[in-house]
Amino acid sequence: MKINNKHYRTIWLKEDDDKIIQIIDQRKLPHFFEIVDLKTVNDIITAIHDLHVRGAGLIGATAGYGMYLAVMQAKDDDELRKFSEDMIATRPTAINLRWAVERQFKAIKNAKTKQERIDIAKKTAIKIADEDAEFCRKIGENGVKIIEDIAKTKKPGEPVNILTHCNAGWLAFVDYGSATSPIYAARDKGINVHVWVDETRPHNKGSRLTAFELLHENIPHSVIVDNVGGHLMQHGMVDLVIVGSDRTTYTGFVGNQIGTYLKALAAHDNNIPFYVTLPSSTFDWTMRDGIKEIPIEEREGHDTKTVEGLVDGKIREPLLTPKDSPAKTFVFDVTPPQYVTGLITERGICKASEDSILELFPEKRN
Amino acid sequence: MKINNKHYRTIWLKEDDDKIIQIIDQRKLPHFFEIVDLKTVNDIITAIHDLHVRGAGLIGATAGYGMYLAVMQAKDDDELRKFSEDMIATRPTAINLRWAVERQFKAIKNAKTKQERIDIAKKTAIKIADEDAEFCRKIGENGVKIIEDIAKTKKPGEPVNILTHCNAGWLAFVDYGSATSPIYAARDKGINVHVWVDETRPHNKGSRLTAFELLHENIPHSVIVDNVGGHLMQHGMVDLVIVGSDRTTYTGFVGNQIGTYLKALAAHDNNIPFYVTLPSSTFDWTMRDGIKEIPIEEREGHDTKTVEGLVDGKIREPLLTPKDSPAKTFVFDVTPPQYVTGLITERGICKASEDSILELFPEKRN
Repeated sequence: MKINNKHYRTIWLKEDDDKIIQIIDQRKLPHFFEIVDLKTVNDIITAIHDLHVRGAGLIGATAGYGMYLAVMQAKDDDELRKFSEDMIATRPTAINLRWAVERQFKAIKNAKTKQERIDIAKKTAIKIADEDAEFCRKIGENGVKIIEDIAKTKKPGEPVNILTHCNAGWLAFVDYGSATSPIYAARDKGINVHVWVDETRPHNKGSRLTAFELLHENIPHSVIVDNVGGHLMQHGMVDLVIVGSDRTTYTGFVGNQIGTYLKALAAHDNNIPFYVTLPSSTFDWTMRDGIKEIPIEEREGHDTKTVEGLVDGKIREPLLTPKDSPAKTFVFDVTPPQYVTGLITERGICKASEDSILELFPEKRN
Repeated sequence: MKINNKHYRTIWLKEDDDKIIQIIDQRKLPHFFEIVDLKTVNDIITAIHDLHVRGAGLIGATAGYGMYLAVMQAKDDDELRKFSEDMIATRPTAINLRWAVERQFKAIKNAKTKQERIDIAKKTAIKIADEDAEFCRKIGENGVKIIEDIAKTKKPGEPVNILTHCNAGWLAFVDYGSATSPIYAARDKGINVHVWVDETRPHNKGSRLTAFELLHENIPHSVIVDNVGGHLMQHGMVDLVIVGSDRTTYTGFVGNQIGTYLKALAAHDNNIPFYVTLPSSTFDWTMRDGIKEIPIEEREGHDTKTVEGLVDGKIREPLLTPKDSPAKTFVFDVTPPQYVTGLITERGICKASEDSILELFPEKRN
């Protein structure tokens, strides 16, 4: 999608040196737009762990490119294994991370020479990224029908009001995004949309990234704090909620950025459709009970006690609490299936139930 | 309650000059503890409007003292009326504001001289403040039973985990607080408590004020962002929710800081008791449908786009969003009665229903 009217993806091979990966340093957004080089597996690990890149699809694509660097730079199979394990350990909740690493191992398994391995790993990394973009485009194609139907019920000039939480935009993937893809598709069809952008504490990926995306794509939007959504829904100011997912069980439990569950409860209480967008790589085909089984990442209390923002032209981390008050930071929660109206995937839309999901993905039936 | 081991109230007459009101400038908390003088009605209006003081009880007490200054300083009845109207206009959702002003008008109605008026207004202001403190103390006495009962179900050493939203602590009243009063009472009875403190964006009254209070009273607590509560409740980490209220209808609709409704939904979904504490002055005896009728304060988008925090020893307002993204700031929401387990008042505990509320306040039956 566009930044300053130029098209970008979130990760790509450097134009004049394909041994180097380039990304946008998302920690600096929305205040500064900086492209950085990733030259080693360690650069990749830092980029994932320290949130230079984040979001299900982009983490997967980064791990794909990371494995390409790993294959190139590992001195033997043990080191390659170690590189891959270190990558997987950076973000335990992100299922796409492990998925991309395993896909790379499968791809290079039968390669006969190191050069062949490198070539395959490079092609596979590009393929993972291309597929991610294409799956997101299709999510938009499938999801836009829901927005079109709501638009038909509106008076002329009245926008369809869509609430989204966190950033499941193109910055979380390679292009298009998941939750934002139907919104971009609706705009392309001339539908009048307005997006409520949840700030999404503690890392403010909504107010920092989703707002940045929508601003650069000229989509009308308003940033709100995370407490506001329920109130808007009570007063008829939200027509539809669309969020992404970091991991969805085949039974329909949706793991996503902390606070998603609260918005799902409010949507349910006010009869507002609540849709989850996800490429099929985000499904976890092994877990039944999402609340009991999805591992929940806890980060440092520091992330709750501070926030990043621009002060005098610099990104600073002001202290928000008494210096000596303890804090706890949880990053994901799980929304049970009964609060999810539907799942929008690259294959189509299904209900958040085992039966409906397996109807769309019959090859996953045992 | 205590700050640095010394007892304070939130508002008082200056010791050596009772024509001056003193308050704690709560905008500077938790980073700086500053006492300021209010000498004119305009000082009072600024203090209320710009949130030097806030919270149902404290706004009422400040308006009470404000009317004392107004009676002293108004050149005639027209100016007194104008002063009172300007005060009421500062915070349209705060019912205690109008209540305190009207109580003062009633008290001074039959005074014969200006001096008599001044004396009565001063006495009434002090009485409003004393009553507020006493009502809060009684709320603690009534509410502590709920915490005691939960404590009995705990293993030795296990704390009762209480979640609270915003600041309905002593800093929101004159002393004790409403939501915190049962917590302080439980601590005084030797019950082991731990408080989850919702940050409460956009003005962070939880992470700034509730955390400050609990820290200075040595109550174990953890600050969390507003998105976390639902997740904690799903995982058995919250035993009880206690919040305050800015306005509760006689039918049981609870107007309170934005986001309260979302926590009530989560408590309901997880069978966790959700109690609202309020002195009787917070009831609105005229409104039936809280969602339709309680006026909802909208403040500047600026409050959502920024946050106050400490940078290099100074309170700054970092920008959190793209400079050009619009934002909307809503400050209150309304929780419907079906999600409220009970109301804890100075008279006792009742259900959030017209029948139960009027049983506790029979004089309000027509």
